[in-house]
Amino acid sequence: MAVPVWSVDPRTGKRREEVGTEATPEEVDAAVRAAATALPALADRSVRSRLLRAAAGALEESAEAVIAAADAETALGVPRLTGELARTAFQLRAFAGVVDEGGYLEVIIDHADPAARPVPRPDLRRYKIPLGVVAVYAASNFPLAFSVPGGDTASALAAGCPVVVKAHPDHPATSALTAELLRRAAVRTGLPADTVVLLHGFTAGVELVRHPLVAAAGFTGSIPGGRALFDAATARPRPIPFYGELGSLNPVVVTEAAAAERAERIGTGLAGSFTLGSGQFCTKPGLVLVPSGAAGDRLVAALTGATRDAAPGVLLDSRMRDNFLNGAAARAALPAVTAPVGPGDADGLAVRPGYVVAQACDLAAEGAYDLLLDECFGPLTVVVRYTGQEELAAVLDRLPGNLTATAHLGAAEAAQEDGPAAVLLARLTALAGRVLVDGWPTGVAVAPAQHHGGPYPATTSTATSVGATAVDRWLRPVAYQDTPPALLPLELRDANPLGLPRRVDGVRQ
Amino acid sequence: MAVPVWSVDPRTGKRREEVGTEATPEEVDAAVRAAATALPALADRSVRSRLLRAAAGALEESAEAVIAAADAETALGVPRLTGELARTAFQLRAFAGVVDEGGYLEVIIDHADPAARPVPRPDLRRYKIPLGVVAVYAASNFPLAFSVPGGDTASALAAGCPVVVKAHPDHPATSALTAELLRRAAVRTGLPADTVVLLHGFTAGVELVRHPLVAAAGFTGSIPGGRALFDAATARPRPIPFYGELGSLNPVVVTEAAAAERAERIGTGLAGSFTLGSGQFCTKPGLVLVPSGAAGDRLVAALTGATRDAAPGVLLDSRMRDNFLNGAAARAALPAVTAPVGPGDADGLAVRPGYVVAQACDLAAEGAYDLLLDECFGPLTVVVRYTGQEELAAVLDRLPGNLTATAHLGAAEAAQEDGPAAVLLARLTALAGRVLVDGWPTGVAVAPAQHHGGPYPATTSTATSVGATAVDRWLRPVAYQDTPPALLPLELRDANPLGLPRRVDGVRQ
Repeated sequence: MAVPVWSVDPRTGKRREEVGTEATPEEVDAAVRAAATALPALADRSVRSRLLRAAAGALEESAEAVIAAADAETALGVPRLTGELARTAFQLRAFAGVVDEGGYLEVIIDHADPAARPVPRPDLRRYKIPLGVVAVYAASNFPLAFSVPGGDTASALAAGCPVVVKAHPDHPATSALTAELLRRAAVRTGLPADTVVLLHGFTAGVELVRHPLVAAAGFTGSIPGGRALFDAATARPRPIPFYGELGSLNPVVVTEAAAAERAERIGTGLAGSFTLGSGQFCTKPGLVLVPSGAAGDRLVAALTGATRDAAPGVLLDSRMRDNFLNGAAARAALPAVTAPVGPGDADGLAVRPGYVVAQACDLAAEGAYDLLLDECFGPLTVVVRYTGQEELAAVLDRLPGNLTATAHLGAAEAAQEDGPAAVLLARLTALAGRVLVDGWPTGVAVAPAQHHGGPYPATTSTATSVGATAVDRWLRPVAYQDTPPALLPLELRDANPLGLPRRVDGVRQ
Repeated sequence: MAVPVWSVDPRTGKRREEVGTEATPEEVDAAVRAAATALPALADRSVRSRLLRAAAGALEESAEAVIAAADAETALGVPRLTGELARTAFQLRAFAGVVDEGGYLEVIIDHADPAARPVPRPDLRRYKIPLGVVAVYAASNFPLAFSVPGGDTASALAAGCPVVVKAHPDHPATSALTAELLRRAAVRTGLPADTVVLLHGFTAGVELVRHPLVAAAGFTGSIPGGRALFDAATARPRPIPFYGELGSLNPVVVTEAAAAERAERIGTGLAGSFTLGSGQFCTKPGLVLVPSGAAGDRLVAALTGATRDAAPGVLLDSRMRDNFLNGAAARAALPAVTAPVGPGDADGLAVRPGYVVAQACDLAAEGAYDLLLDECFGPLTVVVRYTGQEELAAVLDRLPGNLTATAHLGAAEAAQEDGPAAVLLARLTALAGRVLVDGWPTGVAVAPAQHHGGPYPATTSTATSVGATAVDRWLRPVAYQDTPPALLPLELRDANPLGLPRRVDGVRQ
């Protein structure tokens, strides 16, 4: 019996419309097989570049409808979703640029060297080829940028891989609409519609990662959900790479000097960052180390004011709302933890941002306070007051892996080459995939040098899901040995007919 | 109670000497912690380059003793081991060159762009940092090149990672000797001896991959052993990358035209390749598709003569010898499978090379003949006679992933751009990480373009264990956002004080 999939309004908790049905195992199988048939057509790089640009254009042309659908299902608001759509279109075009440039193919050519020592060397030519059908597990918190038309889909298409997306249940109508836009863009570009296929349903998601024709998976979501799928991917008879972005505390360290120089600005900036998008960003600063003493007190006072001024917000769904309220209450209830601005229930289905304050000494050893080291999804941050470098180091030693780690430094510290700030940055580097100074981690720029990933549980691999190098996840190298010129891929021929950046006999060209 | 580790002479089956003891859990823990303390000292690239060159020199200086030890334990013979030592030293120096050049750091710098659309872009600078302590599981079949001083160790040290090697039980004395050379080279270079630590024992190997401070693992060996360790690595509370090279059939396709043009040369070449090193190479051609008919018959006749002429050889240990004899017998006993040169027992502990012949139609569907699709470690190859493209395609469709796949083509085929040979090469590309034309897969050149890896079960990842890019396995990217110049790693400063190849604002430099 078909299980209906509903679009729900998080502002009221009411069902809006029936979007489709959860995919049966047969439908999952059919979806993957359909996507697999698109693989040969995607081999042409120029058609992929056109597809990505067409998809960006299609999103922009349908912006009004897409944003309305997303706002109705996520309550993220039109301004934020307008920005997210622009980001998503920008990202699709950025990956088109990656495809056009071709550096991601990592072409290396070593001509034969019969005189090589200790043994003669054959002709070897290496580049990267697409892995096959990619499963994408969409995130709840970015219904566009980390969902159907988001970074995982864009980078997989850039690599030449067809995509089967498992829609997030919090925005099925937006998923259906954007999947349709992508499929139409594919057809307009001369590709099969099944270059992108959409599935709904929890069980379908589990079936998907186990399907023999699925070659890799990308995921953005919770630690338990991501870990379960990671375990399924690695337990397959033929294991596949599973690129999961699971959870992150995104620690922030405010030094004594930074607090002394600009306590108010940091407190206000922190409030802006942790309440952004109702605290539902994967890079929300969730643990902030603030020095004890007068300067730190001023920072906390500024944080209090700015947090009180922040508007209540609607979370993505009622389960997240319950988890947030329970999680915030459990943290606030810990002995010696205070809640200067208590997070909690607001009018209707909204929640109020808030923060709690704990003492570093309580976090230095395993125990009940470990709860403060778990991510709390929603507009809550944990301020930890520390006294001296030793206490600070003890807390940092307790932290799991993170997407980001941030230092707020004093001006003199920031200019000193081998001082304490360098030591702090080295420590933060070990904890995260992106290290920031004097900024806030929310906002993940789409740029070649971006790295959105980090030690587990931030991600299940060393790869990034944002930025040009995200395409690397969906490729594998292959080397051709002593292959006649006529049979070499164009990418590997001496004449370089495609004009690719290459490394030939040790020389970058 | 300490379990002794014995060096055994495979030519006699007799114990030679007691080398040490199997590591207890406490010793594994101590080994990993000791290695971890070497991490900071390895941060300096120039010292790593010196270490790798010193290690190469130390191997060469002690060549006589190393080769004698290895021959006594492996029976691989002095000429082969002399070549392997030269290769191992070459490989260590090649990775020193990789470190010096610095391209593997993949530096990308994007300067801030306040005017960027859709949003202003921060300053972002990315490079790669070492993962931490690497566990290396040594192979049996290359006591130097894929063992203690081999590619996994060399590439991990190049990346800046200390190494804990789990010795292969088939050559513990060689392992102890070469580990000591590496440790002395470390000390001479100003690094801690524990930059490389050696462990013996099966249980120690399992403990090792589970140790919280182990950040990644490299393995070369059997499918069951590698899979068990892969499963342990991925089941950890914090999963780690496990780069395993497990098993490969290395299929070879001989086309009608190739057989017609040079049946004898191909038959003789095949015998030389599959009997090389007593058939114990991971790239041994284990399944050879030969056309039915007169030309194919001539090929098989040449193979028969050359295989009969090949000398018997001693396998690495008695378990491998038993597995080989049982495996060869089981394959030869399949209905309609013939053994023109029966592999089997030779004088003493040696085995005779041999091959079996099967029919493609028997392999086209699941069943008893699937045994022929399993690697048989030792000097055996399986010739499969096929009639027409359909039968050939049906067998290729049944093959698991491979390190290599080879085509022997006719001269006209090899020169035709879009003909059947191109179709065949595309099919072989899907099956393997290295594709060869008119050659033999044994012999894996150490070169920048090399790729030694392939779809599972060839490897458990998309990475290579040979060639310059093997270093990528032990690194993770990190991005610095808006970081003051004084606090940036030297690799990421605008002035490029280290002279690294970089990509700055989209331009390769």
